[in-house]
Amino acid sequence: MVVKNQIKFIKSLHQKKYRTQHGLFVAEGVKLIGELLDSDISPKELYATDEYTDARTDVPIHRISNSELVRMSSLKSPNKVLGVFYIPTPEPLDFSGWILALDRVQDPGNLGTIIRLCDWFGIGHLLCSTDTADCYNPKVLQATMGSIARVNVVYGSVESVLRECGLPTYGASVEGQSVYDLDLPDSGILVMGNESSGISAGITNLLDFAVAIPSYSGSKAESLNVATATAVLLSEIRRNTIQK
Amino acid sequence: MVVKNQIKFIKSLHQKKYRTQHGLFVAEGVKLIGELLDSDISPKELYATDEYTDARTDVPIHRISNSELVRMSSLKSPNKVLGVFYIPTPEPLDFSGWILALDRVQDPGNLGTIIRLCDWFGIGHLLCSTDTADCYNPKVLQATMGSIARVNVVYGSVESVLRECGLPTYGASVEGQSVYDLDLPDSGILVMGNESSGISAGITNLLDFAVAIPSYSGSKAESLNVATATAVLLSEIRRNTIQK
Repeated sequence: MVVKNQIKFIKSLHQKKYRTQHGLFVAEGVKLIGELLDSDISPKELYATDEYTDARTDVPIHRISNSELVRMSSLKSPNKVLGVFYIPTPEPLDFSGWILALDRVQDPGNLGTIIRLCDWFGIGHLLCSTDTADCYNPKVLQATMGSIARVNVVYGSVESVLRECGLPTYGASVEGQSVYDLDLPDSGILVMGNESSGISAGITNLLDFAVAIPSYSGSKAESLNVATATAVLLSEIRRNTIQK
Repeated sequence: MVVKNQIKFIKSLHQKKYRTQHGLFVAEGVKLIGELLDSDISPKELYATDEYTDARTDVPIHRISNSELVRMSSLKSPNKVLGVFYIPTPEPLDFSGWILALDRVQDPGNLGTIIRLCDWFGIGHLLCSTDTADCYNPKVLQATMGSIARVNVVYGSVESVLRECGLPTYGASVEGQSVYDLDLPDSGILVMGNESSGISAGITNLLDFAVAIPSYSGSKAESLNVATATAVLLSEIRRNTIQK
């Protein structure tokens, strides 16, 4: 049995303003909660129906009814458990490998998919401009499929990092050089831009290389979705590393 | 001024059952309608606010108010115009190049993104199992960003085509051979499977090769999203063609 105020508090955490204020975020579903409990991210408490069993943790579990879960959930079909976690302090960026940077990526599904791609391709550090979508937004968390637990997401100035990193810097642009012709190094920074307007002028001026995914000759398509373009470019980075 | 029955009819076309019954589908927004009017797909009629101007067509335009557009639209923010189009009869599959085949892809956003990828990478023919999402679903159409006008989408038995095509056949599987090690030919069929369960056993048995996108060593991510995996594999197919 939970009280009305608890439900109200959980629901407030679906908004960034309250997540920032309390330093907490909410995650949902058996798989995502499992991945978070296996990570270094600290849980505060779980709310779960009697169907949920997880022996891995000594975190307090509030047992609730399914209708209570529905009331506090952001999902259409809540899945047994909801957890409140402490927003972790990001680690410093590691400049010994590749870093992905996002400039104003707005769509939560795209950001979540990109975090999942980072995890798959072993990009441990994701730098987001402060006006990129919030990685603790419930839709982002769902789209990461648990990868949020394994990627260090840092919000800050992309410009400052580009100026100070000492690494070769690349930005995705339809006007860039074909990624198939580039000999990519073992470390660098790859910047992906906003869904509509691409990479901002201020950041473009700081880049060493503009890189493109060639469209097939004759294609009238204007662009790729930012998440699918990220998939291709991270794959190229890894293919280069593997084949060296 | 539209009558209640017209709004009801348009809204019924948001459902597959009625699209099939009438052989019609609905598309929305200035960009998508523009791409469709430029294609071989035949328009029946447009419903548009006074803000919409398009000199390219002699299709009947019903002028409507924005509130009428909102009532017939499937979008949160309708954009000036909605069009009713005849569902085209698919062309026969062309076995001279690459064909992409989908086995039970369910998510409309994934299907739309995959159609957009086909357009970008010059895959003109997309074969979908009959239980794949419907390409004329409004969410699919929006995600194609107009590419639906340039990709021939055929619904039918993937098994029959694999048996009879005479081409090398590939299926995406985490247990397959690394795509980075394969020498891909100039024509073939690539099959992508369902979001949760992958490619069905019946189809897997008919494939010549299982192909994987290697995860970075040490990654704990279990899989890639089907649209991002398709992006990487189509890029590899095109890279091979370009570099030959």
